[in-house]
Amino acid sequence: MTSTATIPDLTLMERFRRVRAASERLAAPLEPEDCVVQSMPDASPTKWHLAHTSWFFETLVLKPTHPAYRPLNPAYNFLFNSYYNTIGKQFLRPHRGLVTRPTLADTLEYRRHVDRYMTELFERSEALGVDVPETVVTVGLHHEQQHQELIVTDLKHLLSCNPLFPVYREGSGAGAEPRREGQAPSAMAWVDGPEGVVDVGHAGEGFAFDHETPRHRVFLHPYRLATRLVTCGEYRAFMADGGYARPELWLSDGWNTVRQEGWEAPLYWMTRDGEWWMFTLSGLRRVDDAEPVCHVSFYEADAYARWAGARLPSEAEWETVAVRRPIEGNFVDEEHFHPRPLSAEPDDGPHQLFGDVWEWTTSAYAAYPGYRQPEGALGEYNAKFMSNQYVLRGGSCATPVSHIRATYRNFFPPTARWQFAGIRLATDGD
Amino acid sequence: MTSTATIPDLTLMERFRRVRAASERLAAPLEPEDCVVQSMPDASPTKWHLAHTSWFFETLVLKPTHPAYRPLNPAYNFLFNSYYNTIGKQFLRPHRGLVTRPTLADTLEYRRHVDRYMTELFERSEALGVDVPETVVTVGLHHEQQHQELIVTDLKHLLSCNPLFPVYREGSGAGAEPRREGQAPSAMAWVDGPEGVVDVGHAGEGFAFDHETPRHRVFLHPYRLATRLVTCGEYRAFMADGGYARPELWLSDGWNTVRQEGWEAPLYWMTRDGEWWMFTLSGLRRVDDAEPVCHVSFYEADAYARWAGARLPSEAEWETVAVRRPIEGNFVDEEHFHPRPLSAEPDDGPHQLFGDVWEWTTSAYAAYPGYRQPEGALGEYNAKFMSNQYVLRGGSCATPVSHIRATYRNFFPPTARWQFAGIRLATDGD
Amino acid sequence: MTSTATIPDLTLMERFRRVRAASERLAAPLEPEDCVVQSMPDASPTKWHLAHTSWFFETLVLKPTHPAYRPLNPAYNFLFNSYYNTIGKQFLRPHRGLVTRPTLADTLEYRRHVDRYMTELFERSEALGVDVPETVVTVGLHHEQQHQELIVTDLKHLLSCNPLFPVYREGSGAGAEPRREGQAPSAMAWVDGPEGVVDVGHAGEGFAFDHETPRHRVFLHPYRLATRLVTCGEYRAFMADGGYARPELWLSDGWNTVRQEGWEAPLYWMTRDGEWWMFTLSGLRRVDDAEPVCHVSFYEADAYARWAGARLPSEAEWETVAVRRPIEGNFVDEEHFHPRPLSAEPDDGPHQLFGDVWEWTTSAYAAYPGYRQPEGALGEYNAKFMSNQYVLRGGSCATPVSHIRATYRNFFPPTARWQFAGIRLATDGD
Amino acid sequence: MTSTATIPDLTLMERFRRVRAASERLAAPLEPEDCVVQSMPDASPTKWHLAHTSWFFETLVLKPTHPAYRPLNPAYNFLFNSYYNTIGKQFLRPHRGLVTRPTLADTLEYRRHVDRYMTELFERSEALGVDVPETVVTVGLHHEQQHQELIVTDLKHLLSCNPLFPVYREGSGAGAEPRREGQAPSAMAWVDGPEGVVDVGHAGEGFAFDHETPRHRVFLHPYRLATRLVTCGEYRAFMADGGYARPELWLSDGWNTVRQEGWEAPLYWMTRDGEWWMFTLSGLRRVDDAEPVCHVSFYEADAYARWAGARLPSEAEWETVAVRRPIEGNFVDEEHFHPRPLSAEPDDGPHQLFGDVWEWTTSAYAAYPGYRQPEGALGEYNAKFMSNQYVLRGGSCATPVSHIRATYRNFFPPTARWQFAGIRLATDGD
Repeated sequence: MTSTATIPDLTLMERFRRVRAASERLAAPLEPEDCVVQSMPDASPTKWHLAHTSWFFETLVLKPTHPAYRPLNPAYNFLFNSYYNTIGKQFLRPHRGLVTRPTLADTLEYRRHVDRYMTELFERSEALGVDVPETVVTVGLHHEQQHQELIVTDLKHLLSCNPLFPVYREGSGAGAEPRREGQAPSAMAWVDGPEGVVDVGHAGEGFAFDHETPRHRVFLHPYRLATRLVTCGEYRAFMADGGYARPELWLSDGWNTVRQEGWEAPLYWMTRDGEWWMFTLSGLRRVDDAEPVCHVSFYEADAYARWAGARLPSEAEWETVAVRRPIEGNFVDEEHFHPRPLSAEPDDGPHQLFGDVWEWTTSAYAAYPGYRQPEGALGEYNAKFMSNQYVLRGGSCATPVSHIRATYRNFFPPTARWQFAGIRLATDGD
Repeated sequence: MTSTATIPDLTLMERFRRVRAASERLAAPLEPEDCVVQSMPDASPTKWHLAHTSWFFETLVLKPTHPAYRPLNPAYNFLFNSYYNTIGKQFLRPHRGLVTRPTLADTLEYRRHVDRYMTELFERSEALGVDVPETVVTVGLHHEQQHQELIVTDLKHLLSCNPLFPVYREGSGAGAEPRREGQAPSAMAWVDGPEGVVDVGHAGEGFAFDHETPRHRVFLHPYRLATRLVTCGEYRAFMADGGYARPELWLSDGWNTVRQEGWEAPLYWMTRDGEWWMFTLSGLRRVDDAEPVCHVSFYEADAYARWAGARLPSEAEWETVAVRRPIEGNFVDEEHFHPRPLSAEPDDGPHQLFGDVWEWTTSAYAAYPGYRQPEGALGEYNAKFMSNQYVLRGGSCATPVSHIRATYRNFFPPTARWQFAGIRLATDGD
Repeated sequence: MTSTATIPDLTLMERFRRVRAASERLAAPLEPEDCVVQSMPDASPTKWHLAHTSWFFETLVLKPTHPAYRPLNPAYNFLFNSYYNTIGKQFLRPHRGLVTRPTLADTLEYRRHVDRYMTELFERSEALGVDVPETVVTVGLHHEQQHQELIVTDLKHLLSCNPLFPVYREGSGAGAEPRREGQAPSAMAWVDGPEGVVDVGHAGEGFAFDHETPRHRVFLHPYRLATRLVTCGEYRAFMADGGYARPELWLSDGWNTVRQEGWEAPLYWMTRDGEWWMFTLSGLRRVDDAEPVCHVSFYEADAYARWAGARLPSEAEWETVAVRRPIEGNFVDEEHFHPRPLSAEPDDGPHQLFGDVWEWTTSAYAAYPGYRQPEGALGEYNAKFMSNQYVLRGGSCATPVSHIRATYRNFFPPTARWQFAGIRLATDGD
Repeated sequence: MTSTATIPDLTLMERFRRVRAASERLAAPLEPEDCVVQSMPDASPTKWHLAHTSWFFETLVLKPTHPAYRPLNPAYNFLFNSYYNTIGKQFLRPHRGLVTRPTLADTLEYRRHVDRYMTELFERSEALGVDVPETVVTVGLHHEQQHQELIVTDLKHLLSCNPLFPVYREGSGAGAEPRREGQAPSAMAWVDGPEGVVDVGHAGEGFAFDHETPRHRVFLHPYRLATRLVTCGEYRAFMADGGYARPELWLSDGWNTVRQEGWEAPLYWMTRDGEWWMFTLSGLRRVDDAEPVCHVSFYEADAYARWAGARLPSEAEWETVAVRRPIEGNFVDEEHFHPRPLSAEPDDGPHQLFGDVWEWTTSAYAAYPGYRQPEGALGEYNAKFMSNQYVLRGGSCATPVSHIRATYRNFFPPTARWQFAGIRLATDGD
């Protein structure tokens, strides 16, 4: 799917309408029971995502701007704040799953309520005597798209806890067909990336988050990037070679995690009658060797790379190559909800840079030189998470295509596995 | 409400019908969202209680007895087993809240399915060529009544976690009226109980659990029992006298718990503008000084008794007195869902022995002399819990009246507070 | 060794001298390094035991009585208080092992200091114009004897954590000789105990702790007591029969503990080349099948008894039999530091009631009817521990013989294994 | 003290002799009790440091090289391995404090044993027919110097746990004199550092650890470095301004740590009668406002910098400036064991770059471009720790002066506080 990230003709209101509808489309196949439970502290219930994204517009757009706005329920301000210390006390994240009221129906009514006032704001701002705060609304839409990705990943985790392995969307996945032995991907190939002093970071046109700026210079030593993602079949070779049992392949913290958590395969993989199966949003099925491996932590990606005689790319290396490639790939808009095997290769690549899986980099998440944290609540959006996390790039099959950019910086702790995260290799050049 | 525990005219089928209907009546005011969430490891979702009680009849009655029984879903055998090691592997208790499918509607269908076959068994046992296993069915009904109590207490805990404090049943409670200063209960009075060698335990007529037998002799030294329960007003005096801050009033483990958990009042109590309020199933309201105090742990009951210059009764003392009193009181059948103040006192009492609140005793839960554990799955019902728990007696406002007896032994760990448990004092006689 | 518990000719001062010397004799083989480390929260360093027992005399005897007493170091009052809330703030138990100063040498000087003033008090009480507080001194001596036992058990735990398995006292144990296949003990025999209404508890003569009183009546149903302890060989049969893998043999909490802790044998047992070895205070050696099994928890004792078709005795049953037997056995005074196989059997027994191992009973530790907690610090000695513990009877190979009585009540949580605790069976009579 | 890091005339044997002696000099004031206890999992007992550094020479030098080497005790290989997975199973780090034997005296004998063979190797290598492995010996000496620093910091933590606050070295500290109000340091000044493409990393001459290489290019944007360290007085201003209570000043993980750990001042600070005191290796004394603040975590350093309108330097910025400055400062060789106030300022600085306190940087610890991990056991030295840690630079008052370099990279988790770590500010240039 070619990027429609910046369809120039869309008005802000039309964008608003589309993004809001996309969230509810994701929730449509779910029962109320599915939408309320929180399966681990890192995840949130679907109902919470639907409410919190509305809270954003209510709190940061409607309350400060719309002269006639009346909250549907004042308590929602407390219930659906996430981590903004500047906006009162928030409800503790691990307790989000304990709030059964408002129900899903109440939450959808809350969305209607907010959407009605937002529409009024778009359509009658002049009559209301106010300006539509375009920047904050735009942030709110990208914020909601981030939560769309989390609806998918958090729901997948929840359903995986059910021994019945419920199906979210029938037919969108691969079914239970056997491993495709014959469809091994082409051998790994490499491209040289631009080296020396290069510019990275957002250049100014279009939306970007604060932490993608300022555009700045870095020095890159010679390096090469793999032209495709690591596949399940390749990853199984690592496992078969004792990958999870050889401490010399792992960072020390990674090895400790392997032992404490009992990891011996990517998340959602399990053995049945001697074969590897995996849980997907289309249910349980055999592992497909040709697919990109996903649901691996940074530690697993790093260990795999060491085993393969390579390394992960830095975020600057990744961006310098990716900025020259089109934003095409398997995004949430396709509703496949799983990475796809690499098929046609129209050119030398690299391929699969966008969509399919987030790609772990060696870069600890940190501020760019000269970075300035925004004032107020938006200042809490990214800056305060700049420790103990690694940068991932490129978006996944759960990301909306209009949400991604070559300069986009996602970040997760090195132990996180419930995102659609995978592996692209790099090596030093010569 | 006078006990109808043994209405002699009811057939087993009619009893079955009534008990099953009572469970669903408790769930009727709930949304699907309320029925799926587990708020702590000790509690279970309503949906699970509804399913597990059906599992009992399916597994212990229908499968071994009904020749034509077909499970609705074979996976339910695994999902809804609770702790019966003899019947395959059970699903881990703390994960009960992660199973969003089957939904509440599916679960009610499961109940229909089981009920249909059970009815067939009752009505056509002769044609089917089998005997109705009356003992196991009777155990199953008492089992379901125990889970009815847990539906109430587990739901109360869940709703209490919601900062909106949702109301389960409007109008059944006291509303938000102020403390009734003028309605102080009469001064505490005492009755002498029978002493010397007495017989305790179930005597043979009617249903009883295995651990209420055998009937046996114990020696009782002179003692006195309070004629009513300790009230919230009296308990507030203990609190005002530094009850939660004076280690000399507490057992050592109790004191550690007070400090670790930060206890400074019964569960569900909180201060608002300098006054004590409490969460009830009718919502948040002021503490009523005249009501029996409840939601206290054994440690709190014990500390209160020490502060009051008294002690708790032993279970033998309690039973020896209670067996001479009628089974009357405020049970779940009244749908008040909260203990009531003592009103009319028709005789010298003691009063409130049955219903309102479970009464903590000094007796560690243990086997009676000569006790024989039943064979098979029913042997796991009570015997294996005989450590680190204390016996409670008399039933509560969440107990069905037809479920209670003077010989009935309930048991919970000394830290448990989410049951409707309160305090009756005793002292040594002279 | 016959009990010398009440050699009538000993003055209080002479008793004081002997008990104090015995503590130091236990520490004599140790290096300073051995005396300072705390191997788990339940245990304390030898140095702490030596200091705390002196603190008792300083705080409860010298300060209130001796007009000229001057503390060696005022900070010791804080450092060496154990759990007496009534005497200021105590130093947290799990931190006892962090205090390297005072050194062992300093601590022995502290003992000299206290002993000097105590001697002066004994010898010159008249000149000082005070009365020797005989009761408190006597409690202090029994208190110190309790800590002598803990020096042995805590040290054993510490040394067992060292992969070199250091020897505390060479030659006192069995060495590494193989299992004595030929010396199987006689088949288990049983004696009927007195039944009906019996009197138990301390009768008045000689010293006893408060919780052994008051003497009171209990009703005993017919029962039988095994005439000897369960042996290692018998316990190995339980293990070989899947004892640690069959949930139906265990209390629920016990089974959880087995799985969480990975128990598969008594504490200090390990396999080497397919054989069972055990760590003793004389080093590592093979398990001797003829010896009484020890270092088992209540849960293991209970599971073993269930497997053997028997049960544990209640403390009243045990006492009613034991009060008729002489106090003879393998005590710490012999310096063997391990239970011995039963050898000569002079009569029908029961044997091994005293010494060798503490015997778990089914009795939860609780107050006797009519029990009155002492005032002040001594009131904290026993009463506040009356929850979540089980009574053990009879003393062990780490107990001083002059410390034990038939009415003596020891108590530990059901998971505790580092004491020398073993198993005597009982059954219902007919 | 001017750096003598590379006194050219010293033979390797003489260096060996000096480094080994320095370790024992640090332990000289200690009692055996002080040397055996482990006060937290991150720290190790002095005895362990003394043994482990000998184990290094035994395992990596003597066993592979010296033809006649005989271990003193084969078990030491297991006991004193630290984290080298390639050399057999290691003893678990948190259990190091449970090993009371070998004693301190035994450990010193182990050192004698290893030193004797090492001396023989140095003096008679030709006669033995072997080459002295100079590289490994040199690594061993730097390894031992790292453990010298840990002896100091781990001991400080241990002694701080003792409510008596024992003195390690009398007179070397500041005593208990009051805060020096009049000696406020000069106002903070700044220097511009070199910008553009610069070379960083070890250049080839002399010893360096693998992770200091390869020398490589980085691009530096304009920046300024503070000419001195942040003082206790300045840090107290941050505290007084609500520094520990304002979430907007903290990284999210840092804020969580502040709340979980209850941090409200640097480690070892405490209030007495309304004034701030601190524990030092010379005992408890008042905080000196003129001294560099130390025992702060990365999170505290980062929050302070944000509060001060500045930031921390990157490691490349720090190194680019420091490489131009002499290696002078307050090192462990002075035996002051605490940072000193800045006194004479011979030039514009920056000052205090070396010694006093390790300086936190914004740089997550990671491999340099082109880094190659060494083969074998030495490959485990640094590379596997490259996650979740931050680089610190410059050495401290616990570092031997001959151990430090401008390119030296130390690393600790962002929560670590028990090292002598402090704060140097930086800002963006213009």
